[in-house]
Amino acid sequence: MSKTYNTEILSVGTELLLGHVTNTDARDISEMLSQIGINVRYHTVVGDNPQRLEECVKVAKERADIIITTGGLGPTCDDLTKQILAKAFGLRLVRDENEQKGLYEYINIGKLLTPNNFQQAMLPEGCMVFHNDWGTAPGCAFEKDGKIVIMIPGPPKECNAMFRTCAIPYLKKLSDEQIVSHSLRIFGMGESAVDQLFRDEMNAMTNPSMAPYAKECDCLLQVTAKARSEAEAEEMLKPIIAHVKEKLGEVVYGMDVECIEEAVIQLQREKRLRFSAAESCTGGDIARRFTDIPGASECFLGGVVTYTNEAKAKLLGIDPALIEEKGAVSFEVAKEMAERVRSLLGSDIGVGVTGLAGPDGDGVHEVGTVFVSMAAPEQTWVKELHLGTFRTRSFIRRMAGNHVYDMMRRYLTGLKVM
Amino acid sequence: MSKTYNTEILSVGTELLLGHVTNTDARDISEMLSQIGINVRYHTVVGDNPQRLEECVKVAKERADIIITTGGLGPTCDDLTKQILAKAFGLRLVRDENEQKGLYEYINIGKLLTPNNFQQAMLPEGCMVFHNDWGTAPGCAFEKDGKIVIMIPGPPKECNAMFRTCAIPYLKKLSDEQIVSHSLRIFGMGESAVDQLFRDEMNAMTNPSMAPYAKECDCLLQVTAKARSEAEAEEMLKPIIAHVKEKLGEVVYGMDVECIEEAVIQLQREKRLRFSAAESCTGGDIARRFTDIPGASECFLGGVVTYTNEAKAKLLGIDPALIEEKGAVSFEVAKEMAERVRSLLGSDIGVGVTGLAGPDGDGVHEVGTVFVSMAAPEQTWVKELHLGTFRTRSFIRRMAGNHVYDMMRRYLTGLKVM
Repeated sequence: MSKTYNTEILSVGTELLLGHVTNTDARDISEMLSQIGINVRYHTVVGDNPQRLEECVKVAKERADIIITTGGLGPTCDDLTKQILAKAFGLRLVRDENEQKGLYEYINIGKLLTPNNFQQAMLPEGCMVFHNDWGTAPGCAFEKDGKIVIMIPGPPKECNAMFRTCAIPYLKKLSDEQIVSHSLRIFGMGESAVDQLFRDEMNAMTNPSMAPYAKECDCLLQVTAKARSEAEAEEMLKPIIAHVKEKLGEVVYGMDVECIEEAVIQLQREKRLRFSAAESCTGGDIARRFTDIPGASECFLGGVVTYTNEAKAKLLGIDPALIEEKGAVSFEVAKEMAERVRSLLGSDIGVGVTGLAGPDGDGVHEVGTVFVSMAAPEQTWVKELHLGTFRTRSFIRRMAGNHVYDMMRRYLTGLKVM
Repeated sequence: MSKTYNTEILSVGTELLLGHVTNTDARDISEMLSQIGINVRYHTVVGDNPQRLEECVKVAKERADIIITTGGLGPTCDDLTKQILAKAFGLRLVRDENEQKGLYEYINIGKLLTPNNFQQAMLPEGCMVFHNDWGTAPGCAFEKDGKIVIMIPGPPKECNAMFRTCAIPYLKKLSDEQIVSHSLRIFGMGESAVDQLFRDEMNAMTNPSMAPYAKECDCLLQVTAKARSEAEAEEMLKPIIAHVKEKLGEVVYGMDVECIEEAVIQLQREKRLRFSAAESCTGGDIARRFTDIPGASECFLGGVVTYTNEAKAKLLGIDPALIEEKGAVSFEVAKEMAERVRSLLGSDIGVGVTGLAGPDGDGVHEVGTVFVSMAAPEQTWVKELHLGTFRTRSFIRRMAGNHVYDMMRRYLTGLKVM
């Protein structure tokens, strides 16, 4: 944007200073702000202490143009953010009737509210109220003394959703430039390899620009353009996106999707194909991830979590002798899991996963050994993975799931599965 | 400790302000410090910018007794922490011969070092050097102007290991006090109700102290005591814990556990009872959560994700006519799910869950309507829940899971299930 707004994110919560929770709110907000071209200069964390919070607000007022607070908006006695910020900017807290009504509705649906819940309807006079569709505490924004103040609740899901839907549109209005950003999601190539591949180009670019980001089990390449209109920015990005897609090829699984399962469900809807899953080491995570997406039932029939050998026999009818002979973590068992769950549920595609997520091994395979499988009408594929002995259990489970989804993505787009 | 050392953690790195990485260093250090009774008052994050870092150091010197920096000690040109901190305390950087030697050895074992790597051997005069066994950049500590300064590298693995092995022993020497903290996990009473219940007591307490914290779908009450020894602190906490447990009663599901499923698996191990799960709206999340715990297979046989009516018939043999008559989201179907998965897998306990996670309704029930069920040898329980029409899909799914686990917890501890 023409004017540079230096931003400070001020997170309020003793639990952060005790190390009970990690400050993911500051990370999420910083990422969203960088995407619309606002510079974050400082993160500060302070406890639920009025004096120290007041001091931090004073410091922030001196060095930042935009002050974004997270946390301290809930009903408990140590929630002080609104009071202190309002005081620092000479504003009174006044009752917001809509929020007050909302709290009553909350009671009407049978929720118990204590008197202190009603503090939540008290907001700085003249502020813009951000209603919270993900919890009960509203957020707000106001401009005073040449500063912009935004207050958002602390619980990560609420913070992330409210900042995206309320604060970002509010901040975008400050800009006479439009910033458009798209992210190409990549599975099968690491962030550093992507960085290597595009480094020279990236260094030569200013607007549009590109930057790779590592995610938990995949990565993305973000392309951003600034222009007077969104349409203009989109035009600037088109050739870049085409170039990047061509250079990266098959490893790009989608644009502006949150995760690989989201890319898969889009392909399934086009192709009208449904799948089912037989999971051992992922313990239901493949089904859980897919059913996090609303409307998943058109594309996912159901699945089995065959976490024990008994379950593999009882739910899928896999011959215990086969498990005895080849082992639960084996090519053969993975193959049977995909084929049997497919026929059991009569789905177009069946997927299976069996492996060692650790921390303990089975005396045969190293931790991180996983067999993923996919059964389709024409063929069954089985892939052996070694996801790393030093990796965490949750990483191995998620990565195994990504490989299963990537097999489906490749099959559904007519790419070579493996 | 007799003297209270107010601590500020100052993390240096532009990648934190861009939201590329989360500040886990500050969390790890805070947790380690709280365990030895040192109060962390502030976390600050600033970019690789000399002026802004200098400003932040000035602020920290005014408000903190201990300044702990993370990051900015490596060889790249934007690593400025040592230079700025040394300058702020009027110290020169001098070459440390051991670290210099270490770098040569590093080269001798075939590692490539660039000339700027040797910057790493330059340290504030008179500091205590913390050799880095996990990377190349050393850390250090010094006392000056009545302040204690500790500098630790930024990469999380190095930061965590070096702080634990070098900084904690260094700081413990300052302390003649130990701090002990326990958290009582609560399901079935909200944070604000807990706060209400104990507010007067909490306000009257200093040491030991109590504070409630909200978690995603439950909450906790943390009790903390400082004393000359850990044993003494534990003694101080015993009556508080007993009192709190008595006042809260059945809603306390565990102490110092991470989640309700962790409390359940402990009870199952004692009782040697195994369970299986039939999941509809939770889509595998109950199984996934339980199998996140290493060794879950002793207590969890497996489960089915009957996400569609077809799956309920094909995997559990539930009569489609019953689903037709009563609806998939019904008391009767929930009951059958628990009973049938229990007998299908031959487990001691079978649990079931069917409901509407939203965002779309079924035209019959409001979003958030969930039936959870538990089948045990003596009886089957079914509970109808209304988790709120305005809640997110993920909240409804997690909360439904917590209710299932709470039924199991109550059954396993001989409490009234519902």
